[in-house]
Amino acid sequence: MAVTMGVPGCLRQVLRGKTGNFLLLAPQRFFSTTFKASDLQIELNKHLKPKPDSSKLIFGKNFTDHMLTVEWSKENGWGKPHIKPFQNLSLHPASSALHYSVELFEGMKAFRGSDQRIRLFRPMLNMNRMLQSSHRACLPAFDQSELLECIRQLIRVDQDWVPHSSTASLYIRPIFIGTEPSLGVAISNHALLFVILGPVGPYFTTGSFNPVSLLADPQFVRAWIGGVGNCKLGGNYGPTIYVQREAAKLGCQQVLWLYGDDHQITEVGTMNIFLFWKDQEGVMELVTPALNGIILPGVIRHSLLDLARKWGEFKVSERTITMSDLIKGLEEKRVKEVFGSGTACVVCPVDRILYQGKNYHIPTMENGPEIAKRFLKELTDIQYGRTPSDWAQVIC
Amino acid sequence: MAVTMGVPGCLRQVLRGKTGNFLLLAPQRFFSTTFKASDLQIELNKHLKPKPDSSKLIFGKNFTDHMLTVEWSKENGWGKPHIKPFQNLSLHPASSALHYSVELFEGMKAFRGSDQRIRLFRPMLNMNRMLQSSHRACLPAFDQSELLECIRQLIRVDQDWVPHSSTASLYIRPIFIGTEPSLGVAISNHALLFVILGPVGPYFTTGSFNPVSLLADPQFVRAWIGGVGNCKLGGNYGPTIYVQREAAKLGCQQVLWLYGDDHQITEVGTMNIFLFWKDQEGVMELVTPALNGIILPGVIRHSLLDLARKWGEFKVSERTITMSDLIKGLEEKRVKEVFGSGTACVVCPVDRILYQGKNYHIPTMENGPEIAKRFLKELTDIQYGRTPSDWAQVIC
Repeated sequence: MAVTMGVPGCLRQVLRGKTGNFLLLAPQRFFSTTFKASDLQIELNKHLKPKPDSSKLIFGKNFTDHMLTVEWSKENGWGKPHIKPFQNLSLHPASSALHYSVELFEGMKAFRGSDQRIRLFRPMLNMNRMLQSSHRACLPAFDQSELLECIRQLIRVDQDWVPHSSTASLYIRPIFIGTEPSLGVAISNHALLFVILGPVGPYFTTGSFNPVSLLADPQFVRAWIGGVGNCKLGGNYGPTIYVQREAAKLGCQQVLWLYGDDHQITEVGTMNIFLFWKDQEGVMELVTPALNGIILPGVIRHSLLDLARKWGEFKVSERTITMSDLIKGLEEKRVKEVFGSGTACVVCPVDRILYQGKNYHIPTMENGPEIAKRFLKELTDIQYGRTPSDWAQVIC
Repeated sequence: MAVTMGVPGCLRQVLRGKTGNFLLLAPQRFFSTTFKASDLQIELNKHLKPKPDSSKLIFGKNFTDHMLTVEWSKENGWGKPHIKPFQNLSLHPASSALHYSVELFEGMKAFRGSDQRIRLFRPMLNMNRMLQSSHRACLPAFDQSELLECIRQLIRVDQDWVPHSSTASLYIRPIFIGTEPSLGVAISNHALLFVILGPVGPYFTTGSFNPVSLLADPQFVRAWIGGVGNCKLGGNYGPTIYVQREAAKLGCQQVLWLYGDDHQITEVGTMNIFLFWKDQEGVMELVTPALNGIILPGVIRHSLLDLARKWGEFKVSERTITMSDLIKGLEEKRVKEVFGSGTACVVCPVDRILYQGKNYHIPTMENGPEIAKRFLKELTDIQYGRTPSDWAQVIC
């Protein structure tokens, strides 16, 4: 059922222009290798929720009035995409997502600028990574541009939920799950792609960084060569909750994930990690672990590397860094800043690492943090439209 | 709603004896650290499905008329267990199981003997392992005996679904998922434990083993030290589907999972692995990888070790075996049998391994397989009640 009554004028135009035609189309009976935004079926929610106070948002707790769903089956291919009222999913109790973690997701944001326009940040990087995760999970391919256009239309429908704030934003969670109603550990013949949205607050209150402390314990390993640590699969996240609790017990806020006998630094919490220091030859360097199969190819990671290379002011490296390298750098006072990077916070400074029973102070805050703050400003200026950039795509 | 109408006489007695009393209990308002079988609420299905032909069953495709569900929340603890008509789950689209794989499961079977009695095989081993998985997933604890009693009652309700066959059985799938409706990667404050049942056919047609071929490719790693390979978490299974497809492309039926630079043999498909051979000192030995953190502690694995130690006819070892060890053994004609062990097949002979581009023939079938067949007979005799044993628990 399609409902367009009670829709604001600008949105009615959107619906007419982009999606109204579906009423004229005959049902598709042929096999679809992708879904198409032009096939969107829109059922508007008649019971809109009150919007939460955008200064009191807790990450991931609030959801908008609508969601996007697209079903797939091996037999019929992709169905039509639907925008419909936010609602529970009805899933067969044998669904492969629930038993065997046939599931993957993305995380991205929409930002409202002071010009009231809403922008996405490099969304095709998320779409491409989602397709890669999908391939690894043996879930079907789709046209990334069509998914992005469906997401744009979903955000337009829920555009009033994008916070009127220069620090808050609308979090976008595309997710793709196996819905095969069978207990064999096998390729799913049924799947559901859906997208939910929710307003989220600033990771830091404006202008002030709150540094985090990290537990670096080599007995816990996030991902490994030959596994799936470079894909955004659900199974990479659940097991980290236990380790995060161990970190909290020891007075640390996040986990610094190590790998291998030489205790390579890999990621921090659910973020990529960066070190800004003077290297062993005395050259200023920004370094992050290379994409060797155990590192998630983060969109913010990618963007920090792009920005730093554009600046051309210091060496930029993607390579292995070990705990010994870091500790030697600290002892020799060569370390300037350590920070995580991710969609949630853009950059997140680190001021302490607990490793082998010893606390190592990281002088990130004492050093500004100059580079971390500069990254934060440049990226948020782009995200909120203060600096024009083709990294920011206006959606309405 | 509790319905007991239309229930066979023997079952009515069961319901009265074990669960009828709940009608007399006042609602529990206090926090429950476990659920109790004596609180079971039973709603019988009024629309029973026809039973499938037990000679044509495909694993995991058929489900019985009822299911068990128990909800948990941090606020209220465990709710009452419910047996109710098999039905779809209604899940919040942000549920932590779907996004972060906060999920774990078990697999066990109920067998109908020629005496018409129904037996479970060492079910407390599954209950205990489920509790361990739950701990690792940061999901709440429960009393294993209470869960087992709930499962027994579920099987009694669906007892007509236990195949009248000495080779088929009723597969039991307990599963525990995070239902936290929030996108933070954090401990779930809401969870759902449920159990579904389905009749499954013999893995092999009576008396004849069909050996499988394995792809052993060290570029794919199932689990790793510091991870969760020793727990039955969903995230250990989804990523194997891709590798299984790679194996099929190369003409192999299953994956032999290797680990480490020395290519340690760890598991096969979703089974544990056993090697029966003459060791390098010329002593007959049954060997399986030790429980070093990357090996699932299988119930059948445990039982084969117990049986072999009871027989006392050859050396029984839990230790590392590498591909080099195996290949040397093959070259020196010391290898008698290689087989997987698991709930699905009990034992599954292996006749070929594709490793580093070369096919290695394993003479398992030429050697009987004497030990594999003996294990199969001893365990199935216990499971179907032909040999009395305290490993088999009669449930009705």
